[in-house]
Amino acid sequence: MPHIPFEPGVPGIRGPMVFRPETAKPLRQLAEILLRSDSTLSPGERELIATYVSALNDCHYCQTVHGYTAAAYLNGNEVLVDFVKRNPEEAAISEKLKALLAIAARVQQSGKFGRNEDVDRARTLGATDLEIHDTVLIAAAFCMYNRYVDGFATWAPEQDHIYRNMANRVVTVGYTQPGWEKPFTEEQTL
Amino acid sequence: MPHIPFEPGVPGIRGPMVFRPETAKPLRQLAEILLRSDSTLSPGERELIATYVSALNDCHYCQTVHGYTAAAYLNGNEVLVDFVKRNPEEAAISEKLKALLAIAARVQQSGKFGRNEDVDRARTLGATDLEIHDTVLIAAAFCMYNRYVDGFATWAPEQDHIYRNMANRVVTVGYTQPGWEKPFTEEQTL
Repeated sequence: MPHIPFEPGVPGIRGPMVFRPETAKPLRQLAEILLRSDSTLSPGERELIATYVSALNDCHYCQTVHGYTAAAYLNGNEVLVDFVKRNPEEAAISEKLKALLAIAARVQQSGKFGRNEDVDRARTLGATDLEIHDTVLIAAAFCMYNRYVDGFATWAPEQDHIYRNMANRVVTVGYTQPGWEKPFTEEQTL
Repeated sequence: MPHIPFEPGVPGIRGPMVFRPETAKPLRQLAEILLRSDSTLSPGERELIATYVSALNDCHYCQTVHGYTAAAYLNGNEVLVDFVKRNPEEAAISEKLKALLAIAARVQQSGKFGRNEDVDRARTLGATDLEIHDTVLIAAAFCMYNRYVDGFATWAPEQDHIYRNMANRVVTVGYTQPGWEKPFTEEQTL
């Protein structure tokens, strides 16, 4: 049971966002810019960073919906996404992305844990200042989103098809288009 | 030295925000709504929550600028702000605010640490669902802002008058008005 009585059928972060639309707006705009706007990091790479940080924060809702979103961008490769969550250094991803994930893991623990050597490694492997910036902010932002979801003990559906449905919607229309706030019907959650 | 060469003379969170204005916009709008828009929690109470979470995250820049901002709203009572950072349960603040700070401290550690008993305590002392929601989101958001500031090792001035200057500006015009992006001159930082 969530700590606040959010609207039934509205999962995860959407519960508090429907409850407080004023703050939902900048929260969703931030996700749209960080994860989907023009960037030299692909949307799949950025969703992988979000998924990895959410897994480190043990946030079931976020790691699942962003994991399926990452997979949808990466030719449906769900096995790769699961591998990255557990062991990014051995995953079949670019060396640059491994270095960015290492930066994200440090920031997830604490801002104080950011190290020059991690940034140097990423730069040596071709990461730009903007890519490093966005990696740090994605990691920091998911330390917020994950806490916003779990701090209220929101409803995290167990059914994979609900997360796939949400992931497909993100890939198609993104984070800010109206429609995300609609509850899932009882039939949809079977 | 920051990990990314931000503009000289631009302290703390303002460095990466000037570097990436697209994300600065929703980040500043979120702060404005959470800390300054109409609420049954006063701006001083909300800045105290932000200051306390920033102190728990050991973020010098954020706890100092938001601490001075809280004090400015609370009749200049800087002693109270310092006391709240160290021992909120014994501070000269309302029992309701103590209960909200206890919720914020749990969320600062992890979203998983949110407990029904803390929410029940706050409710018994008169906290509304909206106040509890905003407390959780302020705590979560400062887990982001603090990491954004420290993850790059941004410049945290040592001079108190720089923080007072920024705090007075927040009290007067808030978080979103143009002007925050201007660097401090060398003379101003003496």
